[in-house]
Amino acid sequence: MIPRYSRPEMVALWEPATKFRIWFEIEAHACDAQAALGVIPKANAEAVWKAQDVEFDVARIDEIEAVTKHDVIAFLTHLAEIVGADEARFVHQGMTSSDVLDTTFNIQLMRAADLLLADLDQLLAALKRRAMEHKMTVRIGRSHGIHAEPVTMGLTFARFYAEMERNRNRLEKARWEIATGAISGAVGTFANIDPRVEEHVCEKLGLRPEPISTQVIPRDRHAMFFATLGVIASSIENIAIEIRHMQRTEVLEAEEFFSKGQKGSSAMPHKRNPVLTENLTGLARMVRAAVVPAMENVALWHERDISHSSVERMIGPDATITLDFALARLTGVIDKLVIYPDNMIANMNKFRGLVHSQRVLLALTQAGVSREDAYRLVQRNAMKVWEEGRDFREELLGDAEVTAALGPAEIEEKFDLGYHTKHVDTIFARVFGES
Amino acid sequence: MIPRYSRPEMVALWEPATKFRIWFEIEAHACDAQAALGVIPKANAEAVWKAQDVEFDVARIDEIEAVTKHDVIAFLTHLAEIVGADEARFVHQGMTSSDVLDTTFNIQLMRAADLLLADLDQLLAALKRRAMEHKMTVRIGRSHGIHAEPVTMGLTFARFYAEMERNRNRLEKARWEIATGAISGAVGTFANIDPRVEEHVCEKLGLRPEPISTQVIPRDRHAMFFATLGVIASSIENIAIEIRHMQRTEVLEAEEFFSKGQKGSSAMPHKRNPVLTENLTGLARMVRAAVVPAMENVALWHERDISHSSVERMIGPDATITLDFALARLTGVIDKLVIYPDNMIANMNKFRGLVHSQRVLLALTQAGVSREDAYRLVQRNAMKVWEEGRDFREELLGDAEVTAALGPAEIEEKFDLGYHTKHVDTIFARVFGES
Amino acid sequence: MIPRYSRPEMVALWEPATKFRIWFEIEAHACDAQAALGVIPKANAEAVWKAQDVEFDVARIDEIEAVTKHDVIAFLTHLAEIVGADEARFVHQGMTSSDVLDTTFNIQLMRAADLLLADLDQLLAALKRRAMEHKMTVRIGRSHGIHAEPVTMGLTFARFYAEMERNRNRLEKARWEIATGAISGAVGTFANIDPRVEEHVCEKLGLRPEPISTQVIPRDRHAMFFATLGVIASSIENIAIEIRHMQRTEVLEAEEFFSKGQKGSSAMPHKRNPVLTENLTGLARMVRAAVVPAMENVALWHERDISHSSVERMIGPDATITLDFALARLTGVIDKLVIYPDNMIANMNKFRGLVHSQRVLLALTQAGVSREDAYRLVQRNAMKVWEEGRDFREELLGDAEVTAALGPAEIEEKFDLGYHTKHVDTIFARVFGES
Amino acid sequence: MIPRYSRPEMVALWEPATKFRIWFEIEAHACDAQAALGVIPKANAEAVWKAQDVEFDVARIDEIEAVTKHDVIAFLTHLAEIVGADEARFVHQGMTSSDVLDTTFNIQLMRAADLLLADLDQLLAALKRRAMEHKMTVRIGRSHGIHAEPVTMGLTFARFYAEMERNRNRLEKARWEIATGAISGAVGTFANIDPRVEEHVCEKLGLRPEPISTQVIPRDRHAMFFATLGVIASSIENIAIEIRHMQRTEVLEAEEFFSKGQKGSSAMPHKRNPVLTENLTGLARMVRAAVVPAMENVALWHERDISHSSVERMIGPDATITLDFALARLTGVIDKLVIYPDNMIANMNKFRGLVHSQRVLLALTQAGVSREDAYRLVQRNAMKVWEEGRDFREELLGDAEVTAALGPAEIEEKFDLGYHTKHVDTIFARVFGES
Repeated sequence: MIPRYSRPEMVALWEPATKFRIWFEIEAHACDAQAALGVIPKANAEAVWKAQDVEFDVARIDEIEAVTKHDVIAFLTHLAEIVGADEARFVHQGMTSSDVLDTTFNIQLMRAADLLLADLDQLLAALKRRAMEHKMTVRIGRSHGIHAEPVTMGLTFARFYAEMERNRNRLEKARWEIATGAISGAVGTFANIDPRVEEHVCEKLGLRPEPISTQVIPRDRHAMFFATLGVIASSIENIAIEIRHMQRTEVLEAEEFFSKGQKGSSAMPHKRNPVLTENLTGLARMVRAAVVPAMENVALWHERDISHSSVERMIGPDATITLDFALARLTGVIDKLVIYPDNMIANMNKFRGLVHSQRVLLALTQAGVSREDAYRLVQRNAMKVWEEGRDFREELLGDAEVTAALGPAEIEEKFDLGYHTKHVDTIFARVFGES
Repeated sequence: MIPRYSRPEMVALWEPATKFRIWFEIEAHACDAQAALGVIPKANAEAVWKAQDVEFDVARIDEIEAVTKHDVIAFLTHLAEIVGADEARFVHQGMTSSDVLDTTFNIQLMRAADLLLADLDQLLAALKRRAMEHKMTVRIGRSHGIHAEPVTMGLTFARFYAEMERNRNRLEKARWEIATGAISGAVGTFANIDPRVEEHVCEKLGLRPEPISTQVIPRDRHAMFFATLGVIASSIENIAIEIRHMQRTEVLEAEEFFSKGQKGSSAMPHKRNPVLTENLTGLARMVRAAVVPAMENVALWHERDISHSSVERMIGPDATITLDFALARLTGVIDKLVIYPDNMIANMNKFRGLVHSQRVLLALTQAGVSREDAYRLVQRNAMKVWEEGRDFREELLGDAEVTAALGPAEIEEKFDLGYHTKHVDTIFARVFGES
Repeated sequence: MIPRYSRPEMVALWEPATKFRIWFEIEAHACDAQAALGVIPKANAEAVWKAQDVEFDVARIDEIEAVTKHDVIAFLTHLAEIVGADEARFVHQGMTSSDVLDTTFNIQLMRAADLLLADLDQLLAALKRRAMEHKMTVRIGRSHGIHAEPVTMGLTFARFYAEMERNRNRLEKARWEIATGAISGAVGTFANIDPRVEEHVCEKLGLRPEPISTQVIPRDRHAMFFATLGVIASSIENIAIEIRHMQRTEVLEAEEFFSKGQKGSSAMPHKRNPVLTENLTGLARMVRAAVVPAMENVALWHERDISHSSVERMIGPDATITLDFALARLTGVIDKLVIYPDNMIANMNKFRGLVHSQRVLLALTQAGVSREDAYRLVQRNAMKVWEEGRDFREELLGDAEVTAALGPAEIEEKFDLGYHTKHVDTIFARVFGES
Repeated sequence: MIPRYSRPEMVALWEPATKFRIWFEIEAHACDAQAALGVIPKANAEAVWKAQDVEFDVARIDEIEAVTKHDVIAFLTHLAEIVGADEARFVHQGMTSSDVLDTTFNIQLMRAADLLLADLDQLLAALKRRAMEHKMTVRIGRSHGIHAEPVTMGLTFARFYAEMERNRNRLEKARWEIATGAISGAVGTFANIDPRVEEHVCEKLGLRPEPISTQVIPRDRHAMFFATLGVIASSIENIAIEIRHMQRTEVLEAEEFFSKGQKGSSAMPHKRNPVLTENLTGLARMVRAAVVPAMENVALWHERDISHSSVERMIGPDATITLDFALARLTGVIDKLVIYPDNMIANMNKFRGLVHSQRVLLALTQAGVSREDAYRLVQRNAMKVWEEGRDFREELLGDAEVTAALGPAEIEEKFDLGYHTKHVDTIFARVFGES
């Protein structure tokens, strides 16, 4: 995580203060449940809530940890300083550090997922708006970077919408995956703490009890979570690449919005570089970089080892903060993307009429020409367009073998753009629902 | 994929013959739909089915592809050789190669998922059986590889069961992700083919129509699919590591089944190495190796490029075949795992009574000793066990500061193993449902 | 590895027959050394060489392994069948399976490296030839996909040459890394075999003795080897991306060679897709996919576990075969790449004169205009070219504020292409050496 | 990067202040070279050095960048504020931002490599010291986690020494790889700046001129650099795993040093967990996580795009800071590792005499017993030790078929530990050189 690629709300989620606040809530709710079960005195449970509105002193906790080399003990010591040593003495009873740490981490990931879901909603709204706006803005479809047949700009936005809607769905599942908590003790047997404490804490914090934990919540959940972030990041790259292609000088069908004060280059003032989408391409790689470590974290020794911890201290904040930033940046890019419909038409006509070759091929076949012959006829005329800059329609009209099969009107009709957009409504209905 | 780590059914799914069979079905169903829509003659559609029971000549198709350098054209040419050039001339009309290739790839992944789901069912059955069998077989729980508190072998199997059940659930979702087909033409606009053809083909083949395709089915679906395989593989590694630990000489709480003729080593005949689970550790890495390439495949240029294709030709078979083999191997290991309950007890007693230190600590606290003091008392006696091989219980009984807080009977009671297993039923009910 | 992306020589290197041949050589050389040391009878050592020209029966070895579940024992049994049980009884004495397996794997990687080095030489030759041919073929340089300033096509080839020469150098180092052998026994102590046997075997097979092995040769060597292949693959992707960009319809500065019979698409006969370089993009991902597993292989338990083995059985052949194929394919692409210098000029002139803006900016500064003002002046005129299609030179000549600083001749001079190519010789001398 | 896993010197290297200082030096040296060539006035070049001892105002630079959205322009503006707008007007002339950025990044990586090399030297010293100390401390060698034959603790340290020495060598090569600078202008043609400026700047800063750059220094260099860090990290994991195994309760042959105030667990005071080496296991994953993104960075569009930049802003500091911390932590662990030679002996004797089975096998063979028979004899007696806890030597002495081949003295001799350590000197000489 670096400030340049961060947004405050997600950053706040990973700050020590937030973590300690969640630790506190877990401990306090656990005390309530313990008191309700008669394990600890009600007065002690109530006393813990005195810290409810007190800001924890992060520096003080660090100071204690420097001695004890144990973060949860350091926190509990500080909590006792606030609540009173005597009142606090039942806090954490029967629990193990990981009960607090793992439940907290899952709460943080769950809240991170909520922010990311909101980000995706914004992105989806932007994509939908631009899809509707350019529903019928015709441009050339390209496969392998080579002109194929006409599509519309709206279809491009629509396919990104569909992809990001899938990602939203995946992220909801990933959120569900990690929305569990565990208060099950040192090896997960509830030896020293009743399972009802876990149930109470989880209910209060919006979690499900982890059905079976060891000392830790199993890490396959987290592997799935970070893998999902990696897929979303890859989709961001997918959109970024499209925009970068559209902006390249020879294509110039769209540009990232370029504000007045902004300088594109210290040396070439005319340059407007797609730097935001290039940046997103790199950020996607970094979110993806969390996937393999998260998977390597699954295999822990016996009930647990702590090898996953240093990884999660990094990828927890890094991957969610970077993805949050990337989604917001992409939304801005989509929202303000400058579209050049005239250039789209000009590009499509670069090889005069050639984009209609598939239709002509089909028409010839339907007119009874063998597939092989039709292919040969189309290719023969196409090559003249390609190599000599001729006009495809005129060449066809002048090719006796072609006109033997197709009349002039039939040939003309193959060059109608409406032919290609006739199912755009159908596709939009599939993607956005019937309007 | 290498034969050593392959099983025939999954291998067959990826053989050229299977692929061509699926291609054929897509083309034939498409012809039916085209005929029903009146686009092509019914007789031609019917004629295509003549190839239904004919085995395609893979060598012949390769031969044609060597000239045309295009695999779908090669196949269609061969199909025409079977069906008759004239009858076959409407085959593939309005379609593009990717309509066939992508729909086929998804069908293969879907069928692979079905095999993997069956594998998971077998594994789950084995895990459940062993969990029930060893539900109350006590052994020491370990965190950081260090003795902590007692657990049971059944709990170990149960947590792997829960993890693999989650994986089963994830794989079902992943299967759903890629169960789509597309017959949408060169750039996905249905310009030359009615969307109803796609609907018909998909319905016949157990797929959903891809809501919006370009030339290709979007690759975020596949990224999610292979990421899911990567998570499952990581869980396999998790189980494998546990067994490898149990089998190491000093622990020896379990062993992979060792058949009579088998030789452990050319040099050390007494050795029984956990080679199957070590092998699974490596195989897990290989399944995981497909994840990043699959994510890199998401960003294609414009409507498509073909960079994903070579990746998928490899990871499609490799990851599914390897995972299929690994799941089956793991099931065999679990099924036949030799468990040594006596060694479990012996290991637990290595540091005499020390595993009960947490209970004593808690009892002292509850008896009114401050947390800090209780910790000091327990640590003082524990260190004598650790360093001098004393018996923890006896040390406690001889420590005046301890007996001032806890009577002998209270101390004795802390060494009861039943204390640790009292919630095993609860946990089993969570994992396997109420019985 | 799949046949489609394989070349026979590299494939042969990984076939069982090759492996068994190397096993044999190691065993036979070891017997010689043992005999020379007087550990085994000379006659027995000599007898082993009877198998020198006998082809091993791979099926027979597999058959034995099916029973023993141990590949080296299976091979030794078969060897005894050829040499005679009595004569063969000192074969492998004092050795452990890994002595044979690891030394063999390193020999295979070393030979694979030799093939890859030869591939790189071919590629370097092709790049150099094309660099010389197009040393002064001017085209526009692009940063961020946006026109910047003129470069030459030769410089593009030259920078790929320099990159691949670095890769050649890295591969030589990687080859050196894995050119070690070990004959050190079950735990690497030479307890049962004299270190001089290792020395003899290594010398005969072109290896250095591994200074300290355990049961295995340390896997950091292999991690470095596969990491190096991953870097080379990334460079292949780098070149592939450049060509794919050059071939896209709007740019069309180069095309992969398109043979006569080849069909670009079943639907669009005019299309010439950069399928080879797209394919290389995907293959690069697959070679890279071996890197992380190879690194995960480094940490083995104690003297060894066998988790690395399944990984290496796959990535050994897969990564080297794929890279060999990719390098050869890339060499073919470079060799036959069709270059369109006229299109290069046409593209450069798309925004009339704008590529010279940096020079004008500099000239203004040098003429005493402040950097900020110069920037403003250039930007003002550049925007007219960009937005209204004006000619940059004419605009400048008509801008009083500009002409106040620069005379017409000075302005004209800024549009000279030779200005940009004046150091091409210098750069070529750096890359290819003085001629 | 997070403070918990950072050391100040490496962190300082990546702070904005350091970066701006390097930028300044590049610009100032470039001005000197330009003045020497007569391109700019000497007085202006000299004036720039006024900023030599001025601390740059990072906040001010950020403020300017917020408007210009261009970091180098922001810096130059601030530099002009210090030096004087008029004096500074030739600064950066003919250069492009990347000339500064890329050269700076390489200088940072080079300096990071220097710190890491020093870290490795410390680690090597610790490993060597411990190797010498425990050169002859016998313990059981284990393959697959199973007892094999005796080794010494010194050999374990020695093999890690050899591995880390290889890593030192690799890192030196990696440092060399990125020790290049480029001052070649917007597209690398030196159109606006003489190559001698590059030469001068590089010489002053300890770099080699990049033979051929575009706008950027080619990223294959950086891919190799980060791949090398990934290999080193994997070796750290290798050592960490060994120590974690040695510390596990049942093995307990070594322990991480445990300071007095330190608490192992909030619940189990007797526990001493190998938390440092577990932590290192996780940190290794994170360093490795930089490798794939660095490789994905190699393929840039044409002369450059900026997708690599966000990746490098993260992995530059993250990977080097984490590796620096990890190496230092590992050095501390090795330095203070508590070794338990008595436990080593006790563990070796767990299966009484079984570790000598290989020697017996060999002796039988040499005494004329066929390999198959010898194997059977050893296995038969070994199984009694394994299953019934018998003593291997006694069983052999009581086995008539064995004693028919080997006399009692011969059998006794096979149980001599010195047999296994006789080549330790040879191996140490290979690793550490002759003493």
